Amino acid sequence: MLKLVFNYNFLEMKTDRRKFIQQLSVGAGALATGLPSLVKGGVPHELGPGRDNNEQHFNMCGYAAPKIETVRIGVIGLGMRGSEAVGRLSYIDGVEIVALCDKYPDRIAAAQKTLEKMQRPKAREFTGEEGWKALCEDKNIDLVYTPTPWSLHTPIVVYAMKNGKHACSEIPAAKTLDQCWELVETSEKTKKHCMMLENCCYDFFELLTLNMVRNGLFGEILHAEGAYLHDLSRGYIFNKNGYADMWRLKENIGRNGNLYPTHGLGPIAQCMNINRGDKFDHLVSMSTNDFTMNDLARELSAKDDFFKPYVDKPYRGNMNTTIVRSFKGKTMMIQHDVSSPRPYSRIHLLSGTKGCASKYPEPEKIAFGHEWIKEEELKNLYDKYSPPIVKHIGTIAKDVGGHGGMDFIMDWRTIDCLRNGLPLDQNVYDAATWSGVGVLSEQSVGKNSKTIDFPDFTRGSWKTNKPHDMTLNGGATTGVREVKPQLKM
Amino acid sequence: MLKLVFNYNFLEMKTDRRKFIQQLSVGAGALATGLPSLVKGGVPHELGPGRDNNEQHFNMCGYAAPKIETVRIGVIGLGMRGSEAVGRLSYIDGVEIVALCDKYPDRIAAAQKTLEKMQRPKAREFTGEEGWKALCEDKNIDLVYTPTPWSLHTPIVVYAMKNGKHACSEIPAAKTLDQCWELVETSEKTKKHCMMLENCCYDFFELLTLNMVRNGLFGEILHAEGAYLHDLSRGYIFNKNGYADMWRLKENIGRNGNLYPTHGLGPIAQCMNINRGDKFDHLVSMSTNDFTMNDLARELSAKDDFFKPYVDKPYRGNMNTTIVRSFKGKTMMIQHDVSSPRPYSRIHLLSGTKGCASKYPEPEKIAFGHEWIKEEELKNLYDKYSPPIVKHIGTIAKDVGGHGGMDFIMDWRTIDCLRNGLPLDQNVYDAATWSGVGVLSEQSVGKNSKTIDFPDFTRGSWKTNKPHDMTLNGGATTGVREVKPQLKM
Repeated sequence: MLKLVFNYNFLEMKTDRRKFIQQLSVGAGALATGLPSLVKGGVPHELGPGRDNNEQHFNMCGYAAPKIETVRIGVIGLGMRGSEAVGRLSYIDGVEIVALCDKYPDRIAAAQKTLEKMQRPKAREFTGEEGWKALCEDKNIDLVYTPTPWSLHTPIVVYAMKNGKHACSEIPAAKTLDQCWELVETSEKTKKHCMMLENCCYDFFELLTLNMVRNGLFGEILHAEGAYLHDLSRGYIFNKNGYADMWRLKENIGRNGNLYPTHGLGPIAQCMNINRGDKFDHLVSMSTNDFTMNDLARELSAKDDFFKPYVDKPYRGNMNTTIVRSFKGKTMMIQHDVSSPRPYSRIHLLSGTKGCASKYPEPEKIAFGHEWIKEEELKNLYDKYSPPIVKHIGTIAKDVGGHGGMDFIMDWRTIDCLRNGLPLDQNVYDAATWSGVGVLSEQSVGKNSKTIDFPDFTRGSWKTNKPHDMTLNGGATTGVREVKPQLKM
Repeated sequence: MLKLVFNYNFLEMKTDRRKFIQQLSVGAGALATGLPSLVKGGVPHELGPGRDNNEQHFNMCGYAAPKIETVRIGVIGLGMRGSEAVGRLSYIDGVEIVALCDKYPDRIAAAQKTLEKMQRPKAREFTGEEGWKALCEDKNIDLVYTPTPWSLHTPIVVYAMKNGKHACSEIPAAKTLDQCWELVETSEKTKKHCMMLENCCYDFFELLTLNMVRNGLFGEILHAEGAYLHDLSRGYIFNKNGYADMWRLKENIGRNGNLYPTHGLGPIAQCMNINRGDKFDHLVSMSTNDFTMNDLARELSAKDDFFKPYVDKPYRGNMNTTIVRSFKGKTMMIQHDVSSPRPYSRIHLLSGTKGCASKYPEPEKIAFGHEWIKEEELKNLYDKYSPPIVKHIGTIAKDVGGHGGMDFIMDWRTIDCLRNGLPLDQNVYDAATWSGVGVLSEQSVGKNSKTIDFPDFTRGSWKTNKPHDMTLNGGATTGVREVKPQLKM
């Protein structure tokens, strides 16, 4: 939600500001243990009829696509998130932002200006209602990066893969079960990566605790919690100058469930090795009624006719609580509330047989018994267990910004994996499963919180899939431009 | 869980140490608003056939029993909680502890010693497997106070009411739906109070936030959370010198659900006016597998044959998460885990249309928007909105002790209501409903988290029942002995 503001004076930029960080050493003390090499493909099958067939076409978990020395990116959607992404990606070496697409030409112009400031060549432009199709069809693109309104994520990503591109989708990647399956089957058939850009997997405490889980410090994680509790009502979803055509407000009408589960869910699903040794088995979900949104619509419409069409709509309940049980008998509690006045929280609670971590309400906390450890001990854990990626790129990421740095860690890592032919941290099964929690929560809420069984998007391969590699082995070759204070996002 | 230790020198005690606090003024700024007088009985009906009949015998919500100038108490169960209760109750004027009952005579002797130290007369003694029945039949008792193992709560409380006594049950008041109904019907038929001793309703932050709710500071509460997250495994439930006959360990075998829901639930149910304007409609519940208890049984049994019978038992899952929806579309999330290593928490989260409160992880927090208020502002809220009972008895309660004072506030308030002929804060519907969450959670867990409808123990009277009175109107006449440092619990 950060606004991209460049105060940078283009004329001052010099070539020698491009520096490389390839030589940064990776802290050996933080290496995750017990991880076999993941740089391997799955076993190819004949293309089957799809979700009705219980056979996986090809296992995209652990799949390493051919190396791409320079990743040519097309960005579709240049609103709040997309304009930021253009800025961030411009810092990364081995990247060319070759195409920009938006329905609104002024947004393309603003993104071109960003590229210009970053001494990046001008990109090809795609606009109009179906500009995204033309971009996906463009031969000279390797990766389509899609920060559009939610409804466009699956159509664009599927079309991109079908046109031979890897694809990164903003969250959630899918809004229906059909879309989840379409993502899975398209990725498997095309052998193109489909990564959902769950940036919160790359926040510092989340990465620390994930690496601590891998090192066994919390024992076995038996319960975890995540959330998206973020009061967006006045500032964002009811802001007539915010999301184009009020699309995000409209998402809250007529659908009831956890519409946006992945910020809280992604990091804990990684800690619990979902799709990689365990899987979601079933969930139940419950929503409150709406106690604020229609009232706000009424209040705003009393002063501004613009809001009249939003009065007395079937708004979703403010708070949704979903509980998911895994095949191995672990539980996850996921919440969503974007319309109640309360401090921001993603919870990020891990409860294991040896310890516990809790991010929100802040400050971050860790315990190995009945007491939270002291601040100094937490600092020591950060020093010892921050994973290699944080030691490698964390400081620069904080400089670049983007939700405190996590957005940039995600972008850098994704590009570095593509350039080095490594599996991506998040694959299409993660995208489908994490987004699927939202879809199934709607089903459960619609049936009085009925238990809903979870589809196995991996079609059995969760049993042998390995956790994603946290070691940077074979990667960490991609450089980053020096971040000048004026360029900070 | 505090041990009662008296270092008091009996010979130093003088009569003038008995002081009264009746004259303490009640802070007017904290008076709850909009509460009509609750000192009234319900409308009596003919006694019907019971739960199959949809008619309430008599409404015990708001019921004021005849005044009892001196409350003669019989305490049944003198283990950890009961021995503490004898100590606390001894501080209260207008109380006589006339009878003590336990299966173990040494516990009775210890409680008599407590009475002696407190310059209280010796109590009549009841022992043996059925000593509690004889105590309940004793003519010269007004109130039976029951801190026994869970399985005895309903039998004792029902028998006490049938023998003309008011009854206070430790938590949970009931373990089955039949027991819940038995409590309700017996209380209605006998017009005897059945109060479950949910002490957490009397903790300072809980009372503060309840009074803030009543004063509208959080707007309408749309979602709330409570829990009992307390690692009891090594210190209590697997402690061979702890609960008699290992009864609390045995409770964790063969039953799977939220066995102990009321510490977290009681305070939020009061904030949401459950049974008094709203009611529980349905719930879903999910448990993890057991990841620690059987392992601990194995570990202990390797060194001590005593634990051999506890190996490979069907232990309940460590973490249970239950979501309850109210008739008015509000939700509550309740958790229970007594076997995972993590810091103590009852959560106590309130999310309203105007603000939010969160007790755990500590420190306590309140927000009226996107930021938690500062410590100084929280202190101001404590000054302004701590309800009359805290201003009246809070300081003394902290001196007496018992979970920081809340136990004593509860005891004092209960006695004061009985002495002044006021309705008790917690009635039989609260006892049945709050305990019922545990019972129904077991049903839901046993059926793969199926949605379970909630019985309406008030048989419709929730629509007109009024929230309990927080003003102390007509009460606050009961004095308390001066608390000498040596007497502190």
